[in-house]
Amino acid sequence: MQSAARDHALICRGCWDQMHMPIPIRGPLAVPFRVCGITRSKMNPNICTICERSFRYVKKQRHISANATILFADIRGYTHLSERMDAVTLSDIVSAFQDQCAQAIWAHDGIVNKQMGDGLMAIFNFPIKNERHAAAAITAAIDIQRRCASVLEDMKAHGAAFPIDALGVGVGVHTGQVEIGEFSTFRSDFTAIGGTVNLTARLESQAAGGEILVSDEAAAQAQDLVAPAATRLLVLKGIEHPVQAHVLAPSH
Amino acid sequence: MQSAARDHALICRGCWDQMHMPIPIRGPLAVPFRVCGITRSKMNPNICTICERSFRYVKKQRHISANATILFADIRGYTHLSERMDAVTLSDIVSAFQDQCAQAIWAHDGIVNKQMGDGLMAIFNFPIKNERHAAAAITAAIDIQRRCASVLEDMKAHGAAFPIDALGVGVGVHTGQVEIGEFSTFRSDFTAIGGTVNLTARLESQAAGGEILVSDEAAAQAQDLVAPAATRLLVLKGIEHPVQAHVLAPSH
Repeated sequence: MQSAARDHALICRGCWDQMHMPIPIRGPLAVPFRVCGITRSKMNPNICTICERSFRYVKKQRHISANATILFADIRGYTHLSERMDAVTLSDIVSAFQDQCAQAIWAHDGIVNKQMGDGLMAIFNFPIKNERHAAAAITAAIDIQRRCASVLEDMKAHGAAFPIDALGVGVGVHTGQVEIGEFSTFRSDFTAIGGTVNLTARLESQAAGGEILVSDEAAAQAQDLVAPAATRLLVLKGIEHPVQAHVLAPSH
Repeated sequence: MQSAARDHALICRGCWDQMHMPIPIRGPLAVPFRVCGITRSKMNPNICTICERSFRYVKKQRHISANATILFADIRGYTHLSERMDAVTLSDIVSAFQDQCAQAIWAHDGIVNKQMGDGLMAIFNFPIKNERHAAAAITAAIDIQRRCASVLEDMKAHGAAFPIDALGVGVGVHTGQVEIGEFSTFRSDFTAIGGTVNLTARLESQAAGGEILVSDEAAAQAQDLVAPAATRLLVLKGIEHPVQAHVLAPSH
């Protein structure tokens, strides 16, 4: 039931969680809103374009501080293969990766905030609130690894024209305070910035194919998911102190 | 004159260059289009949202191969400072960076295709065609460095509460074949992928604050701009052979 409700919210869950405003996004009540240009967001089909663009106006402030969990994922071995692979295969791989990640992220109330070629950044706990946002992000990360491993297996079974084993997905998950807002005068979609976001990106860059690196801060909020994991001490570019990461490898 | 025309194109330059379709984006003829949701793109104010979203439908193909110049830029020292800086200062710095870069990129017919926190990716020669796209991107990069240096000087003069000298902008520029399209089923904005894009990102990651690293391929198309520059041999992650970069440092 909960899952079905999540898949087909009738009102925008972001506007409701952030402002207690009921904005219809499905069903007949959504029609007049659609005419005014308010539709379902591409970041998550259960939030609307008000969430995407208009917090600045609605909230009368340029940015919002929030406790959130950030997830970065990208394809390991992609740069190397992109020099050798034909355009169609490359675009099929990127599309499959982006679609599988989005399904996993949406299923756990996250939003796909940025896509950049073979990588993406997701936010959990904004605009859709979720007290267990670290656990949601880690579960989504596990789901991403399983889905992508399965797609790669399929490609292998169908005789892909490139060495599948060289490909894998690396994920980083970290929890902390982020600044959410529109950080340029000419774009109107929000993003998150700050030390938490950067540390997540750095964590992800250290994850091998198939691995999820979870920070202490995120792990502390989701001990049931992370407890048996091995840890690794990482020296990260631009980060003063070594960072301990919990290493999950769900598809191995 | 040319500059004024560029600043205020009456028809979408992307639709014209790619499909010879005149789509009004300014003046009275633009009004009915605006009512239908076709407006100026956030990627570049001289292209329209058809360029942003609808090449797939208009061209009846999932992606397009194009010769283009890619530019990546980001803030050096940002990760380190983001751990120490208050939220307002951080967001002011990111906004100033994004705005200055966009002005420089638009002035040379590029589009700001992706923004990601303290970084961005720009494309030259698509959808607005420009035979001298490598030169346009390098000139934009020089402009970015000058503009950002000037903003940082201003902040210093006004007594910024953090060490300005630790900040700088790194830029990478490379020319080659890219795949342009929508690489997921749920987003409807195009991007560029492929080896050329990855190499540009890797180049940029090696640029020190104030530096522009230009690949041989881009330099060959704009020898007048690059000729006196020093070169540096770089070993880049995921790239098999060492890459020679031409080093420009216009604001030094």
